[in-house]
Amino acid sequence: MDLKLQNDIVELIHSARRILLVTHVAPDGDAIGSLLGLAWLLRAQGKEVTQFCEDAVPEVYTWLPGSAEIVRQPGGLHDLVISLDCSDARRMGDLLQEGLTGLPLINIDHHVTNTCFGTLAWVDPSSVSTTQMILELADSLGWQVSQPIAVCLLCGLVTDTRSFRTYNVDTVAVQAALRLMEAGASLNEVTRRVLDRRPLASVRLWGQAIDRLHLEGNILWTEVTREMRRQWALDENGDSGLANFLSGVRESKVVVVFTERKNGTIDVGMRSEPGYDVAQVAYRLGGGGHPQAAGCTMEGDVADIRERVLAELRRALADP
Amino acid sequence: MDLKLQNDIVELIHSARRILLVTHVAPDGDAIGSLLGLAWLLRAQGKEVTQFCEDAVPEVYTWLPGSAEIVRQPGGLHDLVISLDCSDARRMGDLLQEGLTGLPLINIDHHVTNTCFGTLAWVDPSSVSTTQMILELADSLGWQVSQPIAVCLLCGLVTDTRSFRTYNVDTVAVQAALRLMEAGASLNEVTRRVLDRRPLASVRLWGQAIDRLHLEGNILWTEVTREMRRQWALDENGDSGLANFLSGVRESKVVVVFTERKNGTIDVGMRSEPGYDVAQVAYRLGGGGHPQAAGCTMEGDVADIRERVLAELRRALADP
Repeated sequence: MDLKLQNDIVELIHSARRILLVTHVAPDGDAIGSLLGLAWLLRAQGKEVTQFCEDAVPEVYTWLPGSAEIVRQPGGLHDLVISLDCSDARRMGDLLQEGLTGLPLINIDHHVTNTCFGTLAWVDPSSVSTTQMILELADSLGWQVSQPIAVCLLCGLVTDTRSFRTYNVDTVAVQAALRLMEAGASLNEVTRRVLDRRPLASVRLWGQAIDRLHLEGNILWTEVTREMRRQWALDENGDSGLANFLSGVRESKVVVVFTERKNGTIDVGMRSEPGYDVAQVAYRLGGGGHPQAAGCTMEGDVADIRERVLAELRRALADP
Repeated sequence: MDLKLQNDIVELIHSARRILLVTHVAPDGDAIGSLLGLAWLLRAQGKEVTQFCEDAVPEVYTWLPGSAEIVRQPGGLHDLVISLDCSDARRMGDLLQEGLTGLPLINIDHHVTNTCFGTLAWVDPSSVSTTQMILELADSLGWQVSQPIAVCLLCGLVTDTRSFRTYNVDTVAVQAALRLMEAGASLNEVTRRVLDRRPLASVRLWGQAIDRLHLEGNILWTEVTREMRRQWALDENGDSGLANFLSGVRESKVVVVFTERKNGTIDVGMRSEPGYDVAQVAYRLGGGGHPQAAGCTMEGDVADIRERVLAELRRALADP
């Protein structure tokens, strides 16, 4: 971490009294983990902290210490905003935008696509998670990382790397995990609670989605319909993880899961092997993401959407 | 590691010239990883080494450096046998038993159910893999851990912990992984090659096994028949990983997969949540393993076997 930037960040934090922490809509484990972890750290420094996320905390993260204090309305007076894990300002949600005028904002994030918004932007794509950056900040400032903080930060590390499986996990990331375990976080508890557990109904839905797998050349695709979810009484998150799982299929370079949402739109989730960029395909279809994991939301007839997506992917695979 | 035991082991190794390394039948990533890792280490000490495994190396491990040298016939003269990752002598296979008479044997294993056979038994259930023990031995003796050795050892760590997800992963285990990464092993390469990739046919088989899931109280079970494997042209390893995957089902405490082998015997693979010990159940049925992951092989009518296993499990769950 750049020392000048660190000093600037510390100065802004020191001069603030009431800090608004914000993480992104549709929060994941790194969003919630960095929000909670930094809140605990700042409170230990005597700051008043509000934790804001426009969307509800997914059930799988509600056991994290302090998650009940996260608010969905950004009320109250604040003199500093810190944005966590948001690659652009819109990711902070609609509610917040107006209230931010004139307030200093620190943008802390690890996404390579971060737009560097805010008064200060600390963007480190070499970190596997935003929580890894929070740990680095705490350690370089000598802030004590207690057990509850370690649990929150380890949650971000584990979820963003799917338990140390992603291509970007290096020795620094593993050292960070070790540091958090030594501070009292149970890796097994975090993993078990946020990564491995899924309801039987969700597994049965996966079984049906596997039945519907199609392999066309290097493209593997399947679908999750409203009817399938209704059959197993599953909500819209019922198929989470399916695309990641299918991306391990040896015969394919690209995986697509077409998920029919409640409102009839189709979520298109894509995964690819290194060397094939699905972010570009998603971008052309009105979405975005990372080269190996991207997506978009489309409206219209399912069969038409499928043909359009597959055509774009065939083109991308033919000319990688 | 106990210093007296270490000295005894080192003395036996020092006085040997031609060492036969043996790992267990139906080898997994820890079996192959410890076999290859120790072979490289001993050769660097000037020993002649034969690596024996009665069953073929599963395709997923054939990329590991040295795996082509593993033999399935234990021919040749040897003056020391080292058994790796075998919880009892039978796990070394049928071919070997006779040739072992009179030879000193070092038994290195991390299974809590190890029968402590052999001249010297170094059994450490606190290690997450036998490869972790080999690393500990190498480091305490000052043997150099080169990059190929680190890759083999990391393979055992990653597979036996399913990428650091099992209950027994502690800071010592993560330190061992970090040590191996620092020695040049790529965690991502190992994970991608041995854990995440599977043939489409195997995924389709999982889909069928999911269709056959039964939940009885806290026990979730399914089966993989010869007919199912034949349909997808899969060999005996086609369902590897299924029990681990199913162990994430939220409604169950124990998972059992009954797999019909080519010879008609039934492999019983069990997984459990902490607090429920399937190693004891497996042991009573003639098998072994770890408290949260154990198994046995049984002969007879499938329905009878299923009832016997489920009855043992119901008893174990009633009185954990």
